[in-house]
Amino acid sequence: MYKKILVPLDGSEKANAAAEHAIELAAKLDAEVTLYHVIPALSPYGNSNLNGAYQQIHNEIQATGEETLQKAQDNFAKSGVKLDIKVIWGDPAEEICREAKEREFDLIVMGSRGLGEIRGFIMGSVSNRVVRHASTPVLIVR
Amino acid sequence: MYKKILVPLDGSEKANAAAEHAIELAAKLDAEVTLYHVIPALSPYGNSNLNGAYQQIHNEIQATGEETLQKAQDNFAKSGVKLDIKVIWGDPAEEICREAKEREFDLIVMGSRGLGEIRGFIMGSVSNRVVRHASTPVLIVR
Repeated sequence: MYKKILVPLDGSEKANAAAEHAIELAAKLDAEVTLYHVIPALSPYGNSNLNGAYQQIHNEIQATGEETLQKAQDNFAKSGVKLDIKVIWGDPAEEICREAKEREFDLIVMGSRGLGEIRGFIMGSVSNRVVRHASTPVLIVR
Repeated sequence: MYKKILVPLDGSEKANAAAEHAIELAAKLDAEVTLYHVIPALSPYGNSNLNGAYQQIHNEIQATGEETLQKAQDNFAKSGVKLDIKVIWGDPAEEICREAKEREFDLIVMGSRGLGEIRGFIMGSVSNRVVRHASTPVLIVR
């Protein structure tokens, strides 16, 4: 029933646990998984016309994001699930909903807010917005 | 991976659609489904010591709740999924989280808030609370 599953990762433990859960489900249902990392824009004015130090920081963050997903992809390779990775800049909740809709994902799997964790709190607020706004089913994993 | 799936129903179209989705998933994963209806307490002081008209109204609501679940169970019988039904009184979000935890469900599947629908709005606020408080993964279906 689910053929394409979108798994947003933010580098947190909660998101990694959700990804493991998603991979297990994908293996059962013979679905493909896209590991997806949205980097919040560096400047409130967007990433266009970056220069000098800005451009350098942008490139470093981009490289770290790609590395994080690459590691996750390597880590899950033994599952046998077809895995794709994608890094994008923008508002995480917006980009997750947009990606799911435009590329016709059947399911989004995300971590929930971890009590008392700052990173968990951030992820949580993204999860809440995705649950409210996505046009795709959303699975929230503890 | 999911062996026991809890599906709260409130009689809304959204909840019925979520139930269909849950049954399809359960069939794929060879899981059992419990259709679960929580009736908000009749009196803010609880249902104990009901008498006369109160007791009669209580019984009628209980019967309607059971009938709703019975119809859903009959409707899904052809899926071949093992179905159980349960009606309980209390706060819906609380009872859903409690049931999922105590009876060790692996997944809760619920409808999301339907924009502009009063019943959808009520279900939505229950979904939001369940997403926040459940210790079980929660799948929110549009």
